[in-house]
Amino acid sequence: MNLKPSLLIIGLTAGLLALPTIANTAFEKPSDAVEYRQSAFSMIGTQIGDMGAMLKGKVPFNAKRFAMRANNAAALSKMPWEAFIPGTEIGTANTSALSEIWSDNENFMKKATVFQKYADELATVAATGDQKKIGKAFGNWAKGCKDCHKSFKD
Amino acid sequence: MNLKPSLLIIGLTAGLLALPTIANTAFEKPSDAVEYRQSAFSMIGTQIGDMGAMLKGKVPFNAKRFAMRANNAAALSKMPWEAFIPGTEIGTANTSALSEIWSDNENFMKKATVFQKYADELATVAATGDQKKIGKAFGNWAKGCKDCHKSFKD
Repeated sequence: MNLKPSLLIIGLTAGLLALPTIANTAFEKPSDAVEYRQSAFSMIGTQIGDMGAMLKGKVPFNAKRFAMRANNAAALSKMPWEAFIPGTEIGTANTSALSEIWSDNENFMKKATVFQKYADELATVAATGDQKKIGKAFGNWAKGCKDCHKSFKD
Repeated sequence: MNLKPSLLIIGLTAGLLALPTIANTAFEKPSDAVEYRQSAFSMIGTQIGDMGAMLKGKVPFNAKRFAMRANNAAALSKMPWEAFIPGTEIGTANTSALSEIWSDNENFMKKATVFQKYADELATVAATGDQKKIGKAFGNWAKGCKDCHKSFKD
């Protein structure tokens, strides 16, 4: 093909993407940001559910599957935060995000950072297959969910 | 605390998770699987949108931001496939997933594997910051979306 790469890209993606129109974000409209972070948290919930089921013995513990879950969890735990853009708090959007996320953003981002750190630690420990260490790391990470929800989720 | 780790985990996660009840999956019911894969694809769409906007010059190219998007894309590209469980095709679920996903699963998974490979390559190339190579790798990956949709998405 003699098409320039840029033309090729325009052609390929024209049907796929909505261009971001909220400045400095990847989102076209506030509801897109809400959907993005809710998608991330929902997918995080799936990782928690399956890892929790394995640790409780509800399903057999499988080190490879657990490590895959922990890797997913670590990657997903980095994603929702960019979507907490102004104008997407409870009352103005279909969300449980309390306005304290913005009025006390420093504390929110501190908790978000701890949550990401614990997720990374869980992924590291999961790779070893050591169930005792895994249980502890999983507990820390799950506690990170609750700790943030307590202050910032309705 | 003197609680056993297992008890601690049960306590911490009791309010957070729905236990998987569809055997060998992380999902409680078919609609959870559909939601999971749609969340992943929607989040992939956000990465495509922002990367496409940078490559087209609609927003300034930022190598660090692009690399973050490509890393997200590589991680997310690995996630939807486990959620294509039987009984979640168009007609039985709120989905665009054609029944060919199951009747021609070998071909579907081949395309899914190529898609993941291109996403990994995009992440590798994005780390170099070389816009020419990035444009090509992005084009390959985006083409992977379309190529699979053509056969398997309504």
